[in-house]
Amino acid sequence: MPQKNRVTLSPMDRPIHNETPFGPANAGIDPFALFEQWFKTAMETDPNNAAVMTLATAFNNRPSARMVLMKEHSPDGFVFYTNYESRKGSELAENPKSALVFWWPAQERQVRIEGHTTRISAEASDAYFATRPRDSQLSAWASAQSSEIDEPISLEAAKAKFKDDPIPRPCSWGGLQLVPERFEFWQGRTSRLHDRIAFIQKNGQWSPRRLAP
Amino acid sequence: MPQKNRVTLSPMDRPIHNETPFGPANAGIDPFALFEQWFKTAMETDPNNAAVMTLATAFNNRPSARMVLMKEHSPDGFVFYTNYESRKGSELAENPKSALVFWWPAQERQVRIEGHTTRISAEASDAYFATRPRDSQLSAWASAQSSEIDEPISLEAAKAKFKDDPIPRPCSWGGLQLVPERFEFWQGRTSRLHDRIAFIQKNGQWSPRRLAP
Repeated sequence: MPQKNRVTLSPMDRPIHNETPFGPANAGIDPFALFEQWFKTAMETDPNNAAVMTLATAFNNRPSARMVLMKEHSPDGFVFYTNYESRKGSELAENPKSALVFWWPAQERQVRIEGHTTRISAEASDAYFATRPRDSQLSAWASAQSSEIDEPISLEAAKAKFKDDPIPRPCSWGGLQLVPERFEFWQGRTSRLHDRIAFIQKNGQWSPRRLAP
Repeated sequence: MPQKNRVTLSPMDRPIHNETPFGPANAGIDPFALFEQWFKTAMETDPNNAAVMTLATAFNNRPSARMVLMKEHSPDGFVFYTNYESRKGSELAENPKSALVFWWPAQERQVRIEGHTTRISAEASDAYFATRPRDSQLSAWASAQSSEIDEPISLEAAKAKFKDDPIPRPCSWGGLQLVPERFEFWQGRTSRLHDRIAFIQKNGQWSPRRLAP
């Protein structure tokens, strides 16, 4: 019989100190504006991690999830970059339905976003790729993301290929944009009396609704 | 035209300082033992957040994801608690395929787990519920998790109902256990030369394979 490792966090599940009320009254009617406000606060306390998000995809009704970095956000959507032939790239090409989660522990806040993912333009992907550090550009050429390999990848072949030339974007690498259809803003509270405000789009208008925690 | 907010993290995507090699040679052959080792390290640096994980579910091939707390882990699986009638509870009752992601930024490590979710025994749920703080027990009675509500929930009715009596577990609330079928251990490296080791189960044996980053 395997030994169980019980993870105990006492006295509460997690220490939650936030007592600021949060509800439809102060959530506003624009989920992008509210996201921007929460994201800004998270960036102030933890700039290295605020843009890290979980991306969930599904293939044959089997979900998979991984961390990705948000690189741009606007009412058009939430942009991240990947190898289009990676597992997430292939799954999203097959089934664009997808979900994101931001988790900002210092604020005890979570933002959940659901929608569908589309490719950004080749021009926009080129422009972003050009800003990447050279070794990151090389690694986009060197790595067939998610495939099985025997040894760690090396940048040497790509370095030899490009010498000191500018490195173009591989066409298998670029941006994807999640276009939101649903948001949920979650503010942790003591005794699990969390505030949860969902935004659903109807006839082009977003409306906030409180959900039971 | 909406203003784009480009998130720029320079000079690297995220500062990554870990240069310890990680590969099949030191990953071992037991993903549960490796998880335990990585989790222990994460608990040492951030005990409040190490057990926080993203749970991804899928319904009609539409993924959704949210943060949950791991409460127990063993070779039997990874246990968390929920209202069985919440959105995740309903989705998992319909489609047990599910995925977890742990993200430990201080170690620049990610663990992805995929498998199927089953209910734990009523006795095990009772035993855990009995250890919960009283207000958390009351809120399990007071909240129809994920349903739309007009006002924040209140514990008053549940308090009046139970007075000073012990609070039994609502039968709609309890533990779920994700039984892994696939693991991936991800160690961040500079220039996105990350180490990714997947464990796949075959004939009851786990075997590690390196994946391209």
